[in-house]
Amino acid sequence: MIRSTSRTLVRDLRRHVGETVSVRGWATTLRRQSRMQFVVVRDHTGTAQITHRRRGAGDAVEAALESLTAESAVRITGTVVDNPVVKLGGLELVPHEVEVLNRAEAPLPIDDRTGIEQRLDRRFLDVRRRPEAGLLFAVQTTLEQGMREFAYAAGATEMHTPKLMGAASESGADVFALDYFDRSAYLAQSPQFFKQMAIAAGIDKVFEVGPVFRAEPSFTSRHATEFTGVDVELAWIDGVEDVMSFEERMLAHALAKVAEAHGDAVAERFGTDIAVPETPFPRMTMAEAQEVLRRGGWDPEGAKEDLDPEGERRLAAHVEEETGHEFVFVTHYPATIRPFYHMRSAERPDLTLGFDLLWKGLEITTGAQREHRHDVLLEQAAEKGLGTGPLRDYLDCFRYGCPPHGGFGMGLARVLMVLLGLDSIREAVFLFRGPHRLTP
Amino acid sequence: MIRSTSRTLVRDLRRHVGETVSVRGWATTLRRQSRMQFVVVRDHTGTAQITHRRRGAGDAVEAALESLTAESAVRITGTVVDNPVVKLGGLELVPHEVEVLNRAEAPLPIDDRTGIEQRLDRRFLDVRRRPEAGLLFAVQTTLEQGMREFAYAAGATEMHTPKLMGAASESGADVFALDYFDRSAYLAQSPQFFKQMAIAAGIDKVFEVGPVFRAEPSFTSRHATEFTGVDVELAWIDGVEDVMSFEERMLAHALAKVAEAHGDAVAERFGTDIAVPETPFPRMTMAEAQEVLRRGGWDPEGAKEDLDPEGERRLAAHVEEETGHEFVFVTHYPATIRPFYHMRSAERPDLTLGFDLLWKGLEITTGAQREHRHDVLLEQAAEKGLGTGPLRDYLDCFRYGCPPHGGFGMGLARVLMVLLGLDSIREAVFLFRGPHRLTP
Repeated sequence: MIRSTSRTLVRDLRRHVGETVSVRGWATTLRRQSRMQFVVVRDHTGTAQITHRRRGAGDAVEAALESLTAESAVRITGTVVDNPVVKLGGLELVPHEVEVLNRAEAPLPIDDRTGIEQRLDRRFLDVRRRPEAGLLFAVQTTLEQGMREFAYAAGATEMHTPKLMGAASESGADVFALDYFDRSAYLAQSPQFFKQMAIAAGIDKVFEVGPVFRAEPSFTSRHATEFTGVDVELAWIDGVEDVMSFEERMLAHALAKVAEAHGDAVAERFGTDIAVPETPFPRMTMAEAQEVLRRGGWDPEGAKEDLDPEGERRLAAHVEEETGHEFVFVTHYPATIRPFYHMRSAERPDLTLGFDLLWKGLEITTGAQREHRHDVLLEQAAEKGLGTGPLRDYLDCFRYGCPPHGGFGMGLARVLMVLLGLDSIREAVFLFRGPHRLTP
Repeated sequence: MIRSTSRTLVRDLRRHVGETVSVRGWATTLRRQSRMQFVVVRDHTGTAQITHRRRGAGDAVEAALESLTAESAVRITGTVVDNPVVKLGGLELVPHEVEVLNRAEAPLPIDDRTGIEQRLDRRFLDVRRRPEAGLLFAVQTTLEQGMREFAYAAGATEMHTPKLMGAASESGADVFALDYFDRSAYLAQSPQFFKQMAIAAGIDKVFEVGPVFRAEPSFTSRHATEFTGVDVELAWIDGVEDVMSFEERMLAHALAKVAEAHGDAVAERFGTDIAVPETPFPRMTMAEAQEVLRRGGWDPEGAKEDLDPEGERRLAAHVEEETGHEFVFVTHYPATIRPFYHMRSAERPDLTLGFDLLWKGLEITTGAQREHRHDVLLEQAAEKGLGTGPLRDYLDCFRYGCPPHGGFGMGLARVLMVLLGLDSIREAVFLFRGPHRLTP
């Protein structure tokens, strides 16, 4: 039974020099010498040294410290002593009582040399042992908070739209299907249709953070079968520029908040400086982007209309060289490679009012003005070979006064990847899901 | 093509008397008389009257207003005129230009007499036509913001855990299964296991808002197959009291915020006063609750250990009479009706440290201190007849120093139901999902 002495966080120990406090955390480094015992305890705010002089037989503290295994959960009550010799903040805790709340088995199944797949198998230990992993989730929290702050101030409403759909959304490809009582259901590949329904329902600006499912057998460092999407949809826009403007200001606001709260810690743990981007971000049409790339010798097979990852990286390098900016909106994607619901340019009906946002060469967003005219939408669906049956409920929204609107979807983990300089999306989420990974 | 005159919201018209502004919204009431045309325009902030004196042939404004159908999306530019005779805020807009951005088909498929199922079929029109429905989502936004504010201030981290699982969670009953490449996956019935993994990963306090899936063929007014759960998990607790204390303070904070932002509007639209609850909430053991109920004559078949909805309502009425409080924590649920991972009472191993929170007689939360001792957890799983194979990854977390912890899950729509006095959960979400409803 744990007694109710209140907990002191490691980061606050300095304020309690000379006092008796109770620290809760995990035993890490264990150095047990003949006369002294040293244990480092870690909580989510830092690490502290426990120093105990052995008193021999009947010394309960000595026995408890001796029994400790690495990563055991402990509660240590003792006196905070100022000791400039101690590396961890010039402080040590001299224990009066050591309670082992949960003893860890030894040896641990992972260590500092364990590869990523084995680390992911024991993700709880992987995250706990590496303070930078914990920092990632603190950054995620602040990033979302910053995006919400901006969106709420702009009048957005937080929506939670269903992930279960009665018909396969969009194209029907890459959709997970499931048995739903006596019929089939499908997992939403994005909240796309539902956030547009919310616009048709008179919600002025939609903000949603939620899971997105893709039955795509992709094994790249930036794909997952389930990821967290940040979705925004804006009603009554004058054009796609309103959407890009909203996104760049939302990102700049959120990144400023992250830089302020975690800039130093991110620099220390990840070696990355968080540069708060200036707005507006550079914009470039797809045609311009391709011209720039081809001038630079980029001409891959099968990427004549879209950019491939290599093209995205080269383009970002070019833009950063020209403008000093890490972001670039690529606009006016060809209609052939965009979904039927992207609005077409009035002047160039072969082009859409759709865009991608690249950050340091990684696509973090797809967005567009949507086609809100029922007849045009029907034509564009037919042109893509889509039957209107499964789209009936969606198309209905456009028959009764759906206003002009547009929006974007952002991959949260991709933003974190770029922000923290991570090599793989597997490290940017708590529990990764891919074609070969459904556990833990 | 929409011109870029900036938009004025209806609620701000009073500030623009005498000026030319542009309003965007939906045409509602259309009264076209021989000399005058009156149209009410609604946006998400209110309704305004458009008043036009017919000028006859060549009057483009007259023609546009004449062509309008109810719920058409319009953009109206005109002069704001102070007119005390007008019911809608003593203001009217005298139009210079009327643009029909999207004409609604007539007649509309739903009207004021349409029943709930047909309204749900056209939920976008249902929500758009009823300002109280839009208010619900504004309340939801503020409620979540209030909960997040409290949780962040308490040091919580926002997590997004997977909804795809490799094994059926918890009991295996009521789980949706899907084909996942070459094997099966299951939809998470709650983030329970994953939020506990986050605790084992050293995340001190977990906060998650996300979808929860239940393959339950329930047709009550309070069940859904997919709903939004608000989940909290707290590490290093001294006992289950810490969990209840966190929840009641979080709710009180969030409800105070909702009352401040929307109290008047909720009273007007829903006829409900938002009472900010005092903390602590009343607490009562299940044994006490049953005694109270049996004294009052409640003794239903098949509800000897748990409370049925009727019992919950009666209990709430009793508590409100005794204490004046709308909330009550029912604690010490019998182990037989709680999951294996609820910690048992040390004194009474037949009882758990699990609780429910009732608000006005509706269960809005289940919570507990969790069993964090690996050996005890194994025993309790075996006692419930659970094989440890599918639980392997979960049980692993308890082998390497998992701290004492506990938490709760709250149904967001249930909170909104009680808060706004709604009869059915179908009205408390944007797009309801039940055994017979997968659309729109």
